[in-house]
Amino acid sequence: MILVNGKPREWIDITDRGFQYGDGLFETIEVCSGQAVFLEWHLRRLNEGCQCLAIPPPNFTLLRREIQTVCEHSALAGVLKIIITRGMGGRGYRQPDIIQPTRVLSLHPYPDYSPKFSSQGIVARFCTTRLGLNPALAGIKHLNRLEQILARAEWSDSSIQEGIMLDINDAVIEGTMSNLFYVQNNTLYTADLIYTGVAGVMREIIINLADAHKLNVIEHRFSKQDLLNATEVFICNSIIGVWPVKRIDNTPFAVGAITQCIQDWLSAFKDKVLDVD
Amino acid sequence: MILVNGKPREWIDITDRGFQYGDGLFETIEVCSGQAVFLEWHLRRLNEGCQCLAIPPPNFTLLRREIQTVCEHSALAGVLKIIITRGMGGRGYRQPDIIQPTRVLSLHPYPDYSPKFSSQGIVARFCTTRLGLNPALAGIKHLNRLEQILARAEWSDSSIQEGIMLDINDAVIEGTMSNLFYVQNNTLYTADLIYTGVAGVMREIIINLADAHKLNVIEHRFSKQDLLNATEVFICNSIIGVWPVKRIDNTPFAVGAITQCIQDWLSAFKDKVLDVD
Repeated sequence: MILVNGKPREWIDITDRGFQYGDGLFETIEVCSGQAVFLEWHLRRLNEGCQCLAIPPPNFTLLRREIQTVCEHSALAGVLKIIITRGMGGRGYRQPDIIQPTRVLSLHPYPDYSPKFSSQGIVARFCTTRLGLNPALAGIKHLNRLEQILARAEWSDSSIQEGIMLDINDAVIEGTMSNLFYVQNNTLYTADLIYTGVAGVMREIIINLADAHKLNVIEHRFSKQDLLNATEVFICNSIIGVWPVKRIDNTPFAVGAITQCIQDWLSAFKDKVLDVD
Repeated sequence: MILVNGKPREWIDITDRGFQYGDGLFETIEVCSGQAVFLEWHLRRLNEGCQCLAIPPPNFTLLRREIQTVCEHSALAGVLKIIITRGMGGRGYRQPDIIQPTRVLSLHPYPDYSPKFSSQGIVARFCTTRLGLNPALAGIKHLNRLEQILARAEWSDSSIQEGIMLDINDAVIEGTMSNLFYVQNNTLYTADLIYTGVAGVMREIIINLADAHKLNVIEHRFSKQDLLNATEVFICNSIIGVWPVKRIDNTPFAVGAITQCIQDWLSAFKDKVLDVD
């Protein structure tokens, strides 16, 4: 099911700035028994992204109603994607005087990931495609995603689930579709996302859960070698939750106790949030 | 008039990767009395862009025929925009196994620029929005254009025609919609576009014309101060040709002899190319 500005429709106008320039934002949200999981976090990030790009945020009452309509079509597990663009028109890069954003909600089947990915971990590789640096766009889940596409096109081996991306200055940042954490001396480390990267909702939730459980979290700049020296590595996003990384290229990692703890905290927190809703 | 994959149509599918991720390229071409100006240069760059992004290039015989069909609708002056995307489908960032690119041709009225912009020059300003650095995407006219949009949104004063963008390391790169040249000691300077920027067709033609006329051209990294110390400054793109810059913020520039020479060379070259076609 797809809703465009509240109406069932499967197309957008050629002049939409989302198509012309990637002028917009998106959210990818897990749907569980008809409920959008961690919806408040996604809507907050969407709103922040709109502020950063100066796109008028949607009417959130209306958006919630549409989300409910779309999610009702998902019996068990699904994925809801929300795209907000600056709408049609304007002259070249210049935006129109009156911006009427386009709002697209689409429901997709939950990907057929093996349950083993959560329990036994996944295999990752380092990508050669680098992330560019731009503090003004760092953190935002915007529609300019060519870097991720080029990185994801580097491998087709289905035994590899994720590619890890460095920025052009050799700092490790994230996976093509996930954020990345590692454990060293009982401390959780992740990239600081000052110059590049996407500030994932799951990343934020994990940092908050770690704080709540007195697990020290450091957001910093780290190298490939720092990562390879880690005792545990995991990736996360809103759809997969937490997947331990059992190997990066030729370096093996154990599925560690801290990663498993975080999976448990997350699972309990998700149940709690879904119960409340 | 709009053609999508050869058929008149004004919309694209929501699942098109151009809309989902900005996964594509574009060309903006001047149309003069029904002819696409400097078409060979645009098609060459489009082909190069497709190679860089690993998008199968269009069938150029077919594309030329469609361009002709669209341009015939333009009596005098117009603008032809060509967008090529990686087409529909794929799973997330991963591209589909069989890529069927989307090809969009649209004809637009020629903008109502004052003829004085060419003869007497335009006013420009420095933008605070910076260009990010990514050598892998530098030069390519791709659909990820949020930086230009944020920069163009910085001003609405209609007496200012262009904003000049620096990269995050303070190098001057280009205008929001144009490439930038300056003159110092009878030498032409422009940004090298190693880390960012769009390698414009008009920029290429100007460099070649300068070479042919024994005018020294240096592509290098330069600062705001280098630019402000110039004796002449101009911007260029395929639609405007060459516009002298008569002022950047509070610094005035004369419309110089070398800029006027280049305008004359360009005008003669354009006539020659259009005559041949």
